[in-house]
Formats: sequence, structure tokens, C-alpha cells
Amino acid sequence: MFINDKAEQLKLEQQHGQVDWGQQGVIMSGAGYHSESKAKEYKHVCKRACQRAVDRLKAGALAVDAVTAALVELEDSPFTNAGMGSNLNLSGEIECDASIMDGKSLRYGAVGAVSGINNPVLVANRLLSEAQKGKLSAGRIPPCFLVGRGAHDWAVNHGIPPCPSEKMATKFSLSAYKRNKHKMELAEKVDTGFNHHSKKRRQASETENGSGLLDTVGAIVVDREGNVAAAVSSGGLAMKHPGRVGQAAHHGCGCWAENTSTLNPYSTAVSTSGCGEHLIRTMLARECSSAMQCEDAHQALLEAMQNKFISSPFLASEDCVLGGVIVLRCCRCSDAQPSPDIQAILGKSYTG
Amino acid sequence: MFINDKAEQLKLEQQHGQVDWGQQGVIMSGAGYHSESKAKEYKHVCKRACQRAVDRLKAGALAVDAVTAALVELEDSPFTNAGMGSNLNLSGEIECDASIMDGKSLRYGAVGAVSGINNPVLVANRLLSEAQKGKLSAGRIPPCFLVGRGAHDWAVNHGIPPCPSEKMATKFSLSAYKRNKHKMELAEKVDTGFNHHSKKRRQASETENGSGLLDTVGAIVVDREGNVAAAVSSGGLAMKHPGRVGQAAHHGCGCWAENTSTLNPYSTAVSTSGCGEHLIRTMLARECSSAMQCEDAHQALLEAMQNKFISSPFLASEDCVLGGVIVLRCCRCSDAQPSPDIQAILGKSYTG
Repeated sequence: MFINDKAEQLKLEQQHGQVDWGQQGVIMSGAGYHSESKAKEYKHVCKRACQRAVDRLKAGALAVDAVTAALVELEDSPFTNAGMGSNLNLSGEIECDASIMDGKSLRYGAVGAVSGINNPVLVANRLLSEAQKGKLSAGRIPPCFLVGRGAHDWAVNHGIPPCPSEKMATKFSLSAYKRNKHKMELAEKVDTGFNHHSKKRRQASETENGSGLLDTVGAIVVDREGNVAAAVSSGGLAMKHPGRVGQAAHHGCGCWAENTSTLNPYSTAVSTSGCGEHLIRTMLARECSSAMQCEDAHQALLEAMQNKFISSPFLASEDCVLGGVIVLRCCRCSDAQPSPDIQAILGKSYTG
Repeated sequence: MFINDKAEQLKLEQQHGQVDWGQQGVIMSGAGYHSESKAKEYKHVCKRACQRAVDRLKAGALAVDAVTAALVELEDSPFTNAGMGSNLNLSGEIECDASIMDGKSLRYGAVGAVSGINNPVLVANRLLSEAQKGKLSAGRIPPCFLVGRGAHDWAVNHGIPPCPSEKMATKFSLSAYKRNKHKMELAEKVDTGFNHHSKKRRQASETENGSGLLDTVGAIVVDREGNVAAAVSSGGLAMKHPGRVGQAAHHGCGCWAENTSTLNPYSTAVSTSGCGEHLIRTMLARECSSAMQCEDAHQALLEAMQNKFISSPFLASEDCVLGGVIVLRCCRCSDAQPSPDIQAILGKSYTG
């Protein structure tokens, strides 16, 4: 589990002057099964992503722009399963999901199954900022969620550069695709021809969602004004069906950010990683955000992970669930430490 | 508001034998602004949709198949904004969203921005039933949400017939598209050339999302075993950007269904209609389902509609919000009436 091991905490020196809040955040490079041999690379890319967020925060950027900057760095790395180097789908194409949430405006922007865009998080961010400008011509409501070709065209029309799909695939993702394709063919032969002794062989031929290709990347940040933001980006599961959208594009499932308000004593930000279908059905990001409104956030989070995910009635029929979250919360109490609570928690179960 | 006026309640005679539950449901043809002249047509299509669900329930079908049958009827009607006769997008194409939730398995299936499929609800239903069969070859996790071309191809590969896009457009949807296009051009001219006295003219040239073209259609049903299910289907907003996905495909936003359990004293089913972006950001279907676990469901629903939608902090920046829900709840109490509570509530606000 990489969230715990490799998450890089931004612990910045407090700024002078008007600053009441620490400028902090967390980066994650995914909850998949990771190649130990590449551990150094993952650590480096997390560190660079942190630095990008730190630089933006130091320059006075809002949390929503700092998480975007961190995500761009993660997407640009060929070692993460986001943007460049993403898992290939069943047709050998890259289709990415990404979303962002701004705790200040409570707005969300997302793209799903978008090809030919190296930085899907930039599109999600832009959807969010365009929607803040109000209605489009003739009173039309601006979209918050675009998918496929339409998302690609909207991005390009808004100045986000396209990237030829062949440039987004890496030798790692291409060779993983070939191995997975072979394993699928083998598994399908086993399923049709050798059902009586297929269990072991089927297990041996499961597709890789890990080696060299991580899962969803994410970041959560609080800025000097105390605004929180969260973002996630993912190439999705290896050998997914074209058009499949995972939790990274799904409101309440991939990320959540909510500033403190009259209803909520704490500002919270959450990013999730793991099996998209499980995270969608349990809406884990929002569940964890709610849990963090409890006084004992650590205990509430562990309980949420157990009751709302691992033992969730929504996943009762699953023989294996896998997901992880990074979370952040801060309060506006004048006597509180400016440093927010930051945690990373993994939920994992196998049964049967 | 059509939910209240035209929703058709299925009130079936109780079956003999093992039946502890009424077989009931509600159909809605949308929360848009509706042409009074077509009121008869809407009433008829709602009635036919009810009858389809009734027929399936009488034949012993589960709730999830009864809501699907009702939705197919609504999608097949050229008068509803779902399937045949849907609103055209900015490029003059039809792209549909649909989702379904089964209260028994708590599974959800959805398609977004899919073209060339007349009955998107059939794809959502099939995604749900395929996922119930377990993993795909080589241990791959089956998708719950597919979009665009990938969704279309998956549907056709699973025996759902494609429909040429030109057959899905009607003379009503085509003429509305032409009028809307003209209004947009006018509005854009006004925006660029006559800003000083543009407000009135801009209002006059808002795109139609109503006349002759309704909003999301939906159905909620409880079967003789007490299982609940909900489904929605929509062609989305007129002149939406290609690739835009609305609440009808979004988990927790378009529909929700949850059978009674140790945690929930009541089974609940909800379908929503209104502005997709507002319904996504507030996750209204799930919020209403939670509210219905209160003893006084009617009061709790009114409060949810007020606090979680109309006055929601998630929509604080909106000058106008519009949404409606149909809801159903039942309990397993042995002394309870078999007839479930069924309500339809509209949330609507204009400010500024």
C-alpha cells in the first residue's frame, strides 16, 4: 500500500503576517499493488508534486490551484497510472478520468473516459472555473461533467493542449497491455475448455493492475486562507471496457472538499484510490468527509472505513474490496494549532 | 410541474397467497416546463408506462425489471425528453443518460452521453445484471458506468439493438433545435454588441428546455417481495455541450433504491428530475432516501428539499434552482398497511 509509505506531507514553515493557517497537503500515488523496484521513482514523483503545490501556495495561489499543480506533476510522470503512462483499455487505448472539488465554492468539475489529453485534471479545473463565471449564452447552464470526445473538444477549445494518444503510452504500459491481453486469452480458453480445474489457472492469469502501473493519484491541500481542495486523476483499471468511468470522475466518490461552515465545524478534504466500482457504490470520499466532522476523527474514520466500505452492505457480494483514502481536516477555532490533521487509511478485505 | 399533476400511481389489487406487500410504483415524465396543449399525451404515456410495470409485476417480475419496462415505454414516446425525441445537443446530436438502482442488491448501472441507442435504460439494466454475475475473464471487475461510444458498443455486443440517430430525432426536437440555435446566435450578438441593455433581451432569448420537450423521466416501484427499484432516463438539457453528463447517469443523484435492512427500517426508492448540475452537486436522490428513514417522512422530505436543495450551500451561488422528486417508502412491520407511502415533491427557487 503506497498511500501510507509514500505519501509526502507538505509541512511548510508558517508564513508571517495575515496567515492563520498552515499551508499543508498530501499527495498520493495510488492504492494498487506496486513494484518495489520502482519505489524510488514513486517517492520522487510524490516529492516533486508536493513541491509544485508548495510553490503555488507560496505564490499566494488558492488550494484548488495548488492541488491542480500537484496533479499535473503526477500525470506527467510515466510511472503513475494517470495522464502519461496510464493503463491501456481493452482496445489498447488510453481513456482518463479526473475530478476536482473546491471546498470554498463547493463546486466540482470532472472529465470521464477522455483520450488525447495528457492532463485531464486541467480540464476538470477549467470546468470548475468556467462554471463559476455563471450561465452561458442564452441562459444555458455550464456543464460540470464532460466525457469522451466532447470532453476532449471542450478542452482544446478552452486552450488545453491535446496530446497524440501514442505519446501517452509508455513502453511499460504497452508491455503490460501485451501481457494482460495474453493472460485474458489464456483465461478465456481456461474458462471455456477446462472448467473442472480452472480455479488455480484462472487465479494465475489475472490481469495486472499493478506492476509498474499505479492506481488513482490524488492530492488534498489547505491554503493560507484555510480553503481546502481535493483532486484525483486515473487511467482506470487495466483492460477496462472502452467508455468505462471510475470513481475518479464521480462526484463524492473520488474526492471531496468542504470548507468549514455553520453546519460543519471542520474543513475537510479527501481523495480516494482503489477499485473504482467499489468506491462509486460506497461514495467513500463523501462518507469519510462526514466522518471527519466527529470530534475523534481518527476513530470515526476507522469506523467509516470498516462500516461504510469493507463491511458495507453495498459491497456485500464482493469477495475482495480494496480502497484507500488520504484525508485532511482543520478547524477555525482561534486557539487551535494551525497545522491540520492529516491521515492516510487503507481499507482492504478478502473473503471466500 | 408535471410530477404532481401527471404522476400515475399504480394501485394494484393485493395478490393472494404469500404477498405481504402492495405492488406499487410511480412514474414521472419530468420536471421541466410543459406545454399544456400536450398534457393529454403526457398523461397517456405515463399511464402506458404504469401499465407496462403492472404487467411485469403481475407476471412475477422483480422491481428492477418493472421499472425498466416502465422506462422503455417512456423512452419510446416521442413526447418525452428520453430516448426517442430527446433534446438535441449543441452539435444537433442526441446523447442520452440513464441509470437504474436495485434496492435488493444495492447495485447501480448507468450510461452517459450515449448515442444511437433508443432505450438507454436497457443498457443500464444490463450493466447491473452483468455485474451481478461476478468478475469477467482474468479477474477483471465488470463496469457499472459506461459512456459515449464505448457504452454504445457494449450495448450492441450485449444484444441491445442500435437505432440510427436520425430516427431518434422528431420534428418537435428538430424544430426546437432550430429555434434554440437562432436564440443562441441572437444572445451571443446581444452579449458582444449590446451589453448596456442586454438583460431583457437575454431573458427573452433563453433556450427552451420545455415546450414539447420534457425533462428526465423516471419510475420507482416496489414488487410483491418488497424489493424496491428506481430508474431515470434523460436526453439532458437542450443545446448542452457534447459529452455533457447529467444527474440521470450519476450515482446517488438521478435515482436511489435501498431495501429495508438492519440499519434502515424502511425500504426507499427515489427518482429525481430537474437541472442535472444542481442535482449532481446536491446528490438529491440519496439525500431524500436518507430523509425517508425518519418517522415523519413527509416533514423530513420537505426539510430535505429546503435545506439540502433549495437552500443548500452547494447551490449558494445559483440564482435559480429547479428540481423535483418522486419517492416511495415501505416498512416490513407486520401490522403495517401493505400500501407504501408515495409522494412527489417539487423544489423550485428563483432569486436575484
